[in-house]
Amino acid sequence: MKKGTLYGTHRVIEPKGSLPQPAIKISNDMEIYDNEILIDVDYLNIDSASFTQLKEEANGEIENIKTRILEIVNQRGKMQNPVTGSGGMLIGRVQEIGSKLFNKIDLKVGDKIATLVSLSLTPLKINKIKKVIPNIDRVEIEGNAILFESGIYAKLPEDMEDTLALAALDVAGAPAQVKKLVHPGDCVLILGATGKSGLMCSCMAKQMVGSKGIVIGQARNENRAQFLKDTNFCDKIIIAAVQNPVNILEETLKANGGKEVDISINCLSIPSVEMSCILPVKDGGIVYFFSMATSFTKAALGAEGVGKDVTMIIGNGYTKDHAEITLDLLRNSKKLRTIFEEKYI
Amino acid sequence: MKKGTLYGTHRVIEPKGSLPQPAIKISNDMEIYDNEILIDVDYLNIDSASFTQLKEEANGEIENIKTRILEIVNQRGKMQNPVTGSGGMLIGRVQEIGSKLFNKIDLKVGDKIATLVSLSLTPLKINKIKKVIPNIDRVEIEGNAILFESGIYAKLPEDMEDTLALAALDVAGAPAQVKKLVHPGDCVLILGATGKSGLMCSCMAKQMVGSKGIVIGQARNENRAQFLKDTNFCDKIIIAAVQNPVNILEETLKANGGKEVDISINCLSIPSVEMSCILPVKDGGIVYFFSMATSFTKAALGAEGVGKDVTMIIGNGYTKDHAEITLDLLRNSKKLRTIFEEKYI
Repeated sequence: MKKGTLYGTHRVIEPKGSLPQPAIKISNDMEIYDNEILIDVDYLNIDSASFTQLKEEANGEIENIKTRILEIVNQRGKMQNPVTGSGGMLIGRVQEIGSKLFNKIDLKVGDKIATLVSLSLTPLKINKIKKVIPNIDRVEIEGNAILFESGIYAKLPEDMEDTLALAALDVAGAPAQVKKLVHPGDCVLILGATGKSGLMCSCMAKQMVGSKGIVIGQARNENRAQFLKDTNFCDKIIIAAVQNPVNILEETLKANGGKEVDISINCLSIPSVEMSCILPVKDGGIVYFFSMATSFTKAALGAEGVGKDVTMIIGNGYTKDHAEITLDLLRNSKKLRTIFEEKYI
Repeated sequence: MKKGTLYGTHRVIEPKGSLPQPAIKISNDMEIYDNEILIDVDYLNIDSASFTQLKEEANGEIENIKTRILEIVNQRGKMQNPVTGSGGMLIGRVQEIGSKLFNKIDLKVGDKIATLVSLSLTPLKINKIKKVIPNIDRVEIEGNAILFESGIYAKLPEDMEDTLALAALDVAGAPAQVKKLVHPGDCVLILGATGKSGLMCSCMAKQMVGSKGIVIGQARNENRAQFLKDTNFCDKIIIAAVQNPVNILEETLKANGGKEVDISINCLSIPSVEMSCILPVKDGGIVYFFSMATSFTKAALGAEGVGKDVTMIIGNGYTKDHAEITLDLLRNSKKLRTIFEEKYI
């Protein structure tokens, strides 16, 4: 077998020297290098932004969507939407493991896995599109894909539906980071606590802070607050408008006996909420931005503008053992699992 | 005296509930609240992006620039450029201190200070523009400004020129954060080590890592590398293209005996270098993005794409004692001071 590089740069065709993700074209030759894994793909979960764009471009016609997906993959060697730049993930079975990795990783041929790196950097060859299921952004195919040595994946568990595991893995980085950042006794504010990643973060934060800590969840109205209250994931719930940082600060102080919090976690999917995440945190505290709608400059200049000495962290979708941590959270909280089964699959 | 709020929201006229920075209009009534400081302003240092825009709009005519600055300040109550959104900083003398702060802060009437919060949130009244000095973005005025309780400032030191202190304070957050993040024995990579913040960070990193650590500075060509070598701020220097992350990784590994670094610091002012900052860092390490050209999503998705478990930090322009830390660095390094005197004032 040919020797590959850690990050898959050996497959980049254009431009040379680039990494696979920003590359315009990569090789989807399905003969594997010594540090690659060949996957027999069952289906693609196209990123929501990408799928919406494809549907619009195709005027909602399924056949047009199929044609366009095949065109993109033939041109680029990967399913990266040229307009949105985004990809998605895939589900499949391990078909072959490169000689360098064989017996050195926890995978064997036949294992069913989800890739947790984006399709926007994953070599893919589609022989046939079997079915497009537009309401869940799913494309069933016959085909193969390659996982690089640096590529992250999760074995799909036996004890839950694939769809449930996928819904959780989609936001796996968030609760795993909360586990790392939050300590016993901390006071944690979760902004957007009623959403998918917010629920997971609240549930994890509650486990981490212990009996002396406190988790404050933010909800945008009475209905959402009642729903959050019923979960018991939060010690206190505030109803406040996330685009009004002073309101968020005041409600947080009320909920926490006049004190600022140690850590805030941004699980909102809307822009311009940086100051709402920064203001309620004490000097020396942490602001964790999981939301992709975060603006780097608004956060950086905003904190300086109010003289806040806080550590602001960019949400990394990956951290060690994030898939297992997240699936274990679902296993250990019946309440969380029930909500996910009702709302997200 | 009337009681003010910590962040100056008592002066926001429109829209209500907003903080002073995003507000369209704030009050520049110069009767101070109990937690404000009144400043007799000597001159404004307009943010470079803002000043460039003003010059263009005014076709380079000084009188037109003056008129436009007066218009903006009359409309908004602050010198926030409506096109760029940015401000700048100011130099002046303390004229009055609110009753709540009096004797509780290290300022007295007559002290010469630089405000380290943006003009984009600072109440300002201009009685007269005395002089515009376009090549250094300076506007000499007669007028007053208000510093909020949360506003940060630095007393201008007796032992150096104002212009030298200002040049350093402009990037004060960077070396102060390096002091916090870097520990003895660390291996640190400074990207953009030959620029203003890069030189300060290199100099500080070298002090922090001690004899067992190593500072690697990146320069873009032989000339810059030679200049950097002459400073002795770095143990190793690499010449590599910052928009080619694989090149940066390879050169860093070569310079560090095949090992990844503990911390990388982005002092570049150009976009799309996120992966060059992420790739050379070991799992568990830190990536510190000081550059305002950083893209939140490129960093977040990029790290996930290569499966890097690194902590990515948004450069906060403020951290405790940042002004003193930065001025002390200039005091303690004759080499750094000489470079700043030659290049930046």
